[in-house]
Amino acid sequence: MSSLDALFTPESIILVGAAHTETKLGGIVLRNLRRFPGRVYPVNPKYRELMGYKTYPSLQEVPYSADRSLDLAVIMRPASEVADILRGLRGRVRCAIIVSSGFAEAGHEDLQNEIREIGRESGIRLLGPNCMGIYHARRKLDTFFLSYERLKRPKRGNTAILSQSGAIMTILFEALRAANTGVSAAVGYGNAVDIDEGDLYEYLREDDSTQVVVSYVESLDDGRKFLESARLLGEKKPLIVLKAGKGESGRTAAYSHTGRLAGRYEVFASLLRQFGIREAGDLDELIDTVKALSYQKPALPGQRAGKRVCILTNGGGAGVLAADECMRQGLEVARVPEERAFKLREIFPSFFSVANPVDLTAQVRDEDYLAVLEEVQEVYDGFLIIALTGVIGISLRLAELVRAFKEKTGKPMALYTSNDGVARSLARLMEKAGIPSYPSPERAVRGLKALLFY
Amino acid sequence: MSSLDALFTPESIILVGAAHTETKLGGIVLRNLRRFPGRVYPVNPKYRELMGYKTYPSLQEVPYSADRSLDLAVIMRPASEVADILRGLRGRVRCAIIVSSGFAEAGHEDLQNEIREIGRESGIRLLGPNCMGIYHARRKLDTFFLSYERLKRPKRGNTAILSQSGAIMTILFEALRAANTGVSAAVGYGNAVDIDEGDLYEYLREDDSTQVVVSYVESLDDGRKFLESARLLGEKKPLIVLKAGKGESGRTAAYSHTGRLAGRYEVFASLLRQFGIREAGDLDELIDTVKALSYQKPALPGQRAGKRVCILTNGGGAGVLAADECMRQGLEVARVPEERAFKLREIFPSFFSVANPVDLTAQVRDEDYLAVLEEVQEVYDGFLIIALTGVIGISLRLAELVRAFKEKTGKPMALYTSNDGVARSLARLMEKAGIPSYPSPERAVRGLKALLFY
Repeated sequence: MSSLDALFTPESIILVGAAHTETKLGGIVLRNLRRFPGRVYPVNPKYRELMGYKTYPSLQEVPYSADRSLDLAVIMRPASEVADILRGLRGRVRCAIIVSSGFAEAGHEDLQNEIREIGRESGIRLLGPNCMGIYHARRKLDTFFLSYERLKRPKRGNTAILSQSGAIMTILFEALRAANTGVSAAVGYGNAVDIDEGDLYEYLREDDSTQVVVSYVESLDDGRKFLESARLLGEKKPLIVLKAGKGESGRTAAYSHTGRLAGRYEVFASLLRQFGIREAGDLDELIDTVKALSYQKPALPGQRAGKRVCILTNGGGAGVLAADECMRQGLEVARVPEERAFKLREIFPSFFSVANPVDLTAQVRDEDYLAVLEEVQEVYDGFLIIALTGVIGISLRLAELVRAFKEKTGKPMALYTSNDGVARSLARLMEKAGIPSYPSPERAVRGLKALLFY
Repeated sequence: MSSLDALFTPESIILVGAAHTETKLGGIVLRNLRRFPGRVYPVNPKYRELMGYKTYPSLQEVPYSADRSLDLAVIMRPASEVADILRGLRGRVRCAIIVSSGFAEAGHEDLQNEIREIGRESGIRLLGPNCMGIYHARRKLDTFFLSYERLKRPKRGNTAILSQSGAIMTILFEALRAANTGVSAAVGYGNAVDIDEGDLYEYLREDDSTQVVVSYVESLDDGRKFLESARLLGEKKPLIVLKAGKGESGRTAAYSHTGRLAGRYEVFASLLRQFGIREAGDLDELIDTVKALSYQKPALPGQRAGKRVCILTNGGGAGVLAADECMRQGLEVARVPEERAFKLREIFPSFFSVANPVDLTAQVRDEDYLAVLEEVQEVYDGFLIIALTGVIGISLRLAELVRAFKEKTGKPMALYTSNDGVARSLARLMEKAGIPSYPSPERAVRGLKALLFY
């Protein structure tokens, strides 16, 4: 059993700083904890009951037995009180989330060092301070101090999110939700006084509900530990890192934000490459990559797959943009071999262009896509489907045809379609079949690339 | 009066190949023409009336007076009939849109040469063949063969779209609509047997309802004419070119798609730069740039504006990502000068970080943004506002505060906010005030950059 089980899948939670109203953060968290099926012990000296929970005036009153400590404490009191609260938790909990800010990021290194020390000697694992805490879909656990009205949660899925920054956590939540990509767990770990990327990578490596890990990193205390645990995680499941603080101004901002020093970016990036860890250049690339990896299993480091892509389109221009992007991404868009092109030309109207992209024109019918896929399936390593639904020959049946092909061959595939009306329904059906849909031809290519190699 | 007035703002239209049902393209176009307030003459030998219009069995029956020809013909008959139809239109119309495909793009250069010749000797200006035709918002003119159910039209605005490719036209329509960016006119010119980019640039240069021009180009017949007219247009209003067919495979696809040869991309790109014309790298960059330019007037070539950007954020991580992107884009994120930072620190809580990005944290209130803007307005050339609406201190009032500042100073500004609930309303209000909103911090930086320099 990992020492982080108390963080990810606790049975019992003490909430220090629970409040009676959702205009206070301690009230929002308590409200969000109502979905949690385990035991919750709110602490607040002014109330005997909050939102239906029996409430305790002080930590000392929370019932506990010496032979079995509680799992998790969530601390939402001012920075100056946190050390005393932690001392009071000694022997009572295995892990504490310190949501409060006002530590190193605000110039108070002394307070931060003090709580680190208390954590070490008491054996309580600490998350934070200055952090969002934990979200765990299966466990219905959510300590984020944002209401469901202010921040919608993504559906349950196989992607874990790690972020020092709470703001980036909310951005990733919204972006993954918009990209129809589900989340297994999310940890906002702020100043990382104890639990850091390395610990979290180690835990997620063994977590069966997580198949993809997204890690937003601003700065690192222990680069060696980070890289080693990242390598180990990356060998088992895809890890995608978004590194912020790449430039001079970004770096200064990262320091004042988390109180940790951002190192030289170029060194970091080259080490990531060396260790076979994926790095996203910006937020869009991160989301596009994660979406693909969440929908389909990519090749792991060492199992380098091929680069030959076939583009099937019913809009010439969109095919050209996709082919351009393939070139930029190092993917090969070789022509359909002549003997196979010949067979396809026999069944297609003369104005279809059977090269690569294969242009099925505005006169396309659903089954034309399948005819091409069947004929060239062995020639290519991955397929990009472009389906512009403005024409009458494309229906939702296309999703069923492509799904069957996908199940039979298991080849990497991605879809570009528009986001209106029929297209949105088509995209949703394709995604149910495990084929990720993207908002531009170029982004679909980048998604497909993530499945083919890195 | 330009010879293209008959194309953009006709009084009268002959539709050759009108149909009775919207399962036929000629029926969709007739249906869409019902919004057009001028005269419409459908031609179809089988009907005397179509969708409420008196219908003519042949071209010869369409009433016309020898001293005043009609303006525009839209031809939707098979390629083999087009030459004869054009001969029949001699002296009767000033311009003809040939929607039909089956010309050079399908290997029939002979047919294409024939219609080009007829156009020349008859004086009829030709758009197409193999094209979408014309959309003109003010004139309520729409010859696109896609129903409003299949393709929603963007709102009326100041951006003109030119595209060889019909597929890309539909993609741009949807993307601009999603980006809340309005369109003045759109021309899909297909194989460009007569009217080409140069003619269209010349027309749009003088068109007062158009302030920004987007041009999707796959291949060019006359590079010199293109560049010269692009330069002239770009001197008066921003022109953004998206060039497809950059690589070997893309180039081949572009040829089979439009029957024109795509030249060496690198030469083209360097000439664009030389002539001060903006080029977008991909579809996202195109939309981000156009949106900014459509909302605010940028500096024109020669009036190079400054590069100093101030980032105001209530989420540290988002500010760091934006600062990183500024660095990549060649923008400067210099610290707030110390005497001004000092003043701000006096009024702000100690945990706000007054550097650059200015981090107003999750404890921000609307008026904190304004306090920063007012204090540093003279120090920076442009402002990036990041407003994460998950926190309680941000309300829709922020839009009003920022609008007033924008009106007073006229400085370039862009917004990043999320796309849910309150954020969406905030974004819409900001956009009403002329501040474009973007779906990621990095894209907001790229939008802002388009306003500062290129």
